[in-house]
Amino acid sequence: MKYTLLFFVLLTSLCHAGAPDRDDGYRLWLKYDLINDASRRAAYARSAPFIVLNSNSPVLKTAAEELQTGLRGLLGKTVPIVASAGGKTGGIILKTDTSLPQLNDEGYQIRSQPNITISGKTDAGVLYGAFAFLRHLQTGQPIGNLALTSNPKIRVRMLNHWDNTDGSIERGYAGSSLWKWYELPERIDPRYRDYARANASIGINGTVVNNVNASSRFLTAEYLEKVAALANVFRPYGIKIYLSVYFPAPKTIGGLKTADPLDPEVNKWWADKANEIYKLIPDFGGFLVKANSEGQPGPQDYNRTHADGANMLAKALAPHKGIVIWRAFVYKADGKADRFKAAYDEFKPLDGQFEKNVIVQVKNGPIDFQPREPFSPIFGMMPQTPLGLEFQITQEYLGFATHLVYEAPIFKECLDSDTYVKGKGSTVAKVIDGSLHNYPLTAIAGVANTGSDRNWTGHPLAQANWYAFGRLAWDHTLSSEAIAREWTQMTLTTEPPSVKTVTEMLLKSREIYVNYNTPLGLSRPWTGAHFAPEPWQNRSSRPDWTAVYYHRADSTGLGFDRTTSGSNALAQYRPEVQQQWNNPETCPLPYLLWFHHVPWAKKLSSGRTLWDELCTRFYTGADSVGWLQKQWAQVKKDVDPETFDNVAGRLATQQKEAIWWRDAWVLYLQEFARQPIPKPFKKPDRTLKEVKESVQVYLVR
Amino acid sequence: MKYTLLFFVLLTSLCHAGAPDRDDGYRLWLKYDLINDASRRAAYARSAPFIVLNSNSPVLKTAAEELQTGLRGLLGKTVPIVASAGGKTGGIILKTDTSLPQLNDEGYQIRSQPNITISGKTDAGVLYGAFAFLRHLQTGQPIGNLALTSNPKIRVRMLNHWDNTDGSIERGYAGSSLWKWYELPERIDPRYRDYARANASIGINGTVVNNVNASSRFLTAEYLEKVAALANVFRPYGIKIYLSVYFPAPKTIGGLKTADPLDPEVNKWWADKANEIYKLIPDFGGFLVKANSEGQPGPQDYNRTHADGANMLAKALAPHKGIVIWRAFVYKADGKADRFKAAYDEFKPLDGQFEKNVIVQVKNGPIDFQPREPFSPIFGMMPQTPLGLEFQITQEYLGFATHLVYEAPIFKECLDSDTYVKGKGSTVAKVIDGSLHNYPLTAIAGVANTGSDRNWTGHPLAQANWYAFGRLAWDHTLSSEAIAREWTQMTLTTEPPSVKTVTEMLLKSREIYVNYNTPLGLSRPWTGAHFAPEPWQNRSSRPDWTAVYYHRADSTGLGFDRTTSGSNALAQYRPEVQQQWNNPETCPLPYLLWFHHVPWAKKLSSGRTLWDELCTRFYTGADSVGWLQKQWAQVKKDVDPETFDNVAGRLATQQKEAIWWRDAWVLYLQEFARQPIPKPFKKPDRTLKEVKESVQVYLVR
Repeated sequence: MKYTLLFFVLLTSLCHAGAPDRDDGYRLWLKYDLINDASRRAAYARSAPFIVLNSNSPVLKTAAEELQTGLRGLLGKTVPIVASAGGKTGGIILKTDTSLPQLNDEGYQIRSQPNITISGKTDAGVLYGAFAFLRHLQTGQPIGNLALTSNPKIRVRMLNHWDNTDGSIERGYAGSSLWKWYELPERIDPRYRDYARANASIGINGTVVNNVNASSRFLTAEYLEKVAALANVFRPYGIKIYLSVYFPAPKTIGGLKTADPLDPEVNKWWADKANEIYKLIPDFGGFLVKANSEGQPGPQDYNRTHADGANMLAKALAPHKGIVIWRAFVYKADGKADRFKAAYDEFKPLDGQFEKNVIVQVKNGPIDFQPREPFSPIFGMMPQTPLGLEFQITQEYLGFATHLVYEAPIFKECLDSDTYVKGKGSTVAKVIDGSLHNYPLTAIAGVANTGSDRNWTGHPLAQANWYAFGRLAWDHTLSSEAIAREWTQMTLTTEPPSVKTVTEMLLKSREIYVNYNTPLGLSRPWTGAHFAPEPWQNRSSRPDWTAVYYHRADSTGLGFDRTTSGSNALAQYRPEVQQQWNNPETCPLPYLLWFHHVPWAKKLSSGRTLWDELCTRFYTGADSVGWLQKQWAQVKKDVDPETFDNVAGRLATQQKEAIWWRDAWVLYLQEFARQPIPKPFKKPDRTLKEVKESVQVYLVR
Repeated sequence: MKYTLLFFVLLTSLCHAGAPDRDDGYRLWLKYDLINDASRRAAYARSAPFIVLNSNSPVLKTAAEELQTGLRGLLGKTVPIVASAGGKTGGIILKTDTSLPQLNDEGYQIRSQPNITISGKTDAGVLYGAFAFLRHLQTGQPIGNLALTSNPKIRVRMLNHWDNTDGSIERGYAGSSLWKWYELPERIDPRYRDYARANASIGINGTVVNNVNASSRFLTAEYLEKVAALANVFRPYGIKIYLSVYFPAPKTIGGLKTADPLDPEVNKWWADKANEIYKLIPDFGGFLVKANSEGQPGPQDYNRTHADGANMLAKALAPHKGIVIWRAFVYKADGKADRFKAAYDEFKPLDGQFEKNVIVQVKNGPIDFQPREPFSPIFGMMPQTPLGLEFQITQEYLGFATHLVYEAPIFKECLDSDTYVKGKGSTVAKVIDGSLHNYPLTAIAGVANTGSDRNWTGHPLAQANWYAFGRLAWDHTLSSEAIAREWTQMTLTTEPPSVKTVTEMLLKSREIYVNYNTPLGLSRPWTGAHFAPEPWQNRSSRPDWTAVYYHRADSTGLGFDRTTSGSNALAQYRPEVQQQWNNPETCPLPYLLWFHHVPWAKKLSSGRTLWDELCTRFYTGADSVGWLQKQWAQVKKDVDPETFDNVAGRLATQQKEAIWWRDAWVLYLQEFARQPIPKPFKKPDRTLKEVKESVQVYLVR
């Protein structure tokens, strides 16, 4: 008993010394808590007496060390890494094997018996296999007869960070930037490595570290050294670094008089800059560009096309195998035009004009990361130009870090949309993974929701969105539910009833949000707080940045007519798609107001009038947050107390704000609809004036 | 051995589960690691078998719990909290005792034998005593015969947070704001409590949570609820909450047409607002105001005085015992005037015109938190108006979070300065603690260096500045060295040689910084990066925001003539002070260029010419960063590895940037001095043009 006491003392004090005794969420889905089930733990341990690694490759070393770290936590023992099995059987063997025909460059294969062999054609493939193996254990699956093979369907799987030089993050809700530019390159925050670990564990292989509204500072020698220091941390995790570039950089930091993409001096400047970058970062990924969009300069300032601009950069990067990711997010300040149509109109005519190492990155929907959008009409329409897909993980329009919105269903909704460009089944996913048009280059990007908050994402459950993005970037056929379940098991609890409850909460959260926020195809990309309801907003520096531009509420009805009688944006889709949406009688309700101006009294397929259906959605949406709260209360016993309280607090805020959104919309729209709130719903406790005042708080200086 | 193994497994896994096994600095000086010396630990443990607390007071409960937490870490055992000793002797007794004549309201007394009794006249006094007792243990002192008595010398000891509604911090270098306004009041970040713990442990009893460049948002009902939620967390730690207010709030959120402080409706609005606040926060501290300064509106917009403005607010707060802290940091955009003189000129005439619950808060120096400033000439000159002292803990002009500058010597330099207003010994400290003029109200504020970075302050050693501010706010007679030593022991290591080394580093760091940054009384409050050297900066939106306005370099010499032949700012001091500084022959070198325009070839008291002395300071300053690095290398074995690497990385950055500052200054000033770099120093490796280009990087968009 003497020993027991001594160890208890040690245990108490050492744990206390290490950190406060609560789970702050820092470890994400890589928690690796000891497996409770002793027999399962023992079974796993028997299969993993040692790890064999016979290589000095940094990426393979990472794989071995990650395996060791994970097993140390899960099994409570340190599994040695050895150079050779030395005749013993039963260990885990890591190896690169170029003779595996079923694998692509980054795929992996895991086989058991007699040893567990994790192999890939490349070192990165092995690394992904190692994490897949750990995930297998974390989710409690048997490993007796392993035969797993998985290949990423898209080549470039990246996060886009909208991080600025001053540490702020555009549309960031989880603290400030992870990148400490003033400390780099001399000080390497250990967090950079943990960031890379998290990304590698879900197959993300690229990161753009600075905002698309870019500072030219990043292309100076001073900053490239800092960027190179980050690249050095990311490299052993198979992650390439990319930079957003400011198109006029040859002027702002190069001293040239022009940034005209057809000017030879400008071309030379970019070529020299590329050479300089690759000297520092031999595996630099390339450039991301936002040009001639929302005030950003670009090639059109010189009467050149997006293709001219992209190609100039592409030629500079081509000798180094770098790529250019050129964003298709463009629209003009024209209150009479339909912003919906802008990207298609500008980019489709350029199909085939881009260099081979250019990819055009398209937001999932035609407008701007709304809670629900139809897929962008560009997808499928540029067969000769690789199109990348840009999702937004950070919750710009999804309630910042206080509302629970699990985004896999948003991502899937787009990926599974059928463009019909090569007949039925021509999904957006097939465009993006290159299978439809045989794109040589494929890419998918998520605008990161990470920040300096200890738990990375502010809302603890928003970690699931980072996770889901990575998993879908790897394999878009995974279901939202499967991803939610495995994330919950790895991150929150392995108790089956609670896993089920949390999974259900996650899966329903997006529809709940849409219901109280933008039901039936409403959208809200107006300027203002991006946080508070403001459907009355009708003044802005640009006509297309007002609320009324989008919802078009008037005494006759609500919604944006995009049929032939309106903007005719629908014509940008294939006839099969148009047919689904161009008839207000048959258009699915979720997209109704995206495409039609619908009379208030119009009877919808639900059997309710538009007004009644709107009210029903707003009220049931807001009420459903109460359901989320009740569900969460049920998992209390199985979830870390700090995480529990954190989520419970945010759900309470969400509940309050859901009612706020509901009240704002119904009171505002009621001025046009001139109808009472339908039973059984009770009219809001406040007046429209009061709601407006409460929103004004968030706009006041 | 079976038990041993089992516990080892538990130990490994539980610690891993709790958090990553590295010290991230979150615990500050409240680490409470197990005391290594077993006999000392045992001796302490014998004296602390239980804690007696017979009260339900939240503050006393905090005291007991903090004691328990500290002892659990230090002694490795849980000391029970009991309501009564039950006849047993030897425990720690916490009690409020109003009959202790040697104590003021917040003072404490600690006596041992037979029990250790920690008492105070108020609950807060007991809390401070509990932390003092723990500090005693943390610094390894004997407790056999304790007889400690300590009283805070200043009543209001506060942090000022320059935090904005969007989570950014003006002049913050440690991440974003601690306050998550979007989550409040529903979600309470556990960090709020840890913030309160840290402050209470050093005697800080007030906090202004928002920027002095204030948003009126904080006075809305919506935000007051959020502020009240923070106040609820701080209250059990004896900390009152204050708000910075935007002077025109009656217009911006009150709907009035004016904010004229003599308008009855405006007065009523503020009175109503105060009532509203105190209903939510019964112990609300009061308002901090920046008015008619740097573009902020104020009473002068209505031809009223600062006193008119302050008194209006004071009357609104008086019924609730709240106070108004009115900042004296004012200056006009007049390139011909001397900014040095502005605060004195505007405020001295108002002496005696302020309400009793107003305190005028004065920055330590006459300009703006420079690396070295003479004390502000206002101190001592307003005998009928309580003057508070404002220090800046965040390193706006001290190298952000990458340079090591221990600030206690800066604070002490001001506090120990003699104003001579009541003869020799009339120090600034005696003005501020009220003893010189019998101020009924006394206050000291530090502009916080805290942020959301895990270690709170970015630079791990900058935690010492927060600590030092608190300790000096409590007792300005403490020495910089004693504070440095105790902070080091509590935070970094208790090994005597390393404690000595770190203490020495801290003590020398400020002079090293001044030497390479602003030696001999140079200053640098110009606009720009606040980070990069820019002595050539001569264009700005205001003439007094240029570098040349301050250093006045020309072909004849360097420095700002503030004698009778110049701005005559010196006349604002008492004759005894003027006498020290008005003669360039005898003016101490650290203040020389603050007061004199000195010829380049002038022989100084050091025996060197001005030019040679400048070069000597710049070069030895930059070289001394190398010395800091060598000292730090010596403590490696005694310091947590993550902290070690963190500081080592920052010191490397500091080394690079110190040379940058040196090169910028000497190359720029050389254009005027037209003399070579004196031996043994080598001329910079770069040209002035190159330095300018490297600085330009930090100014580019």
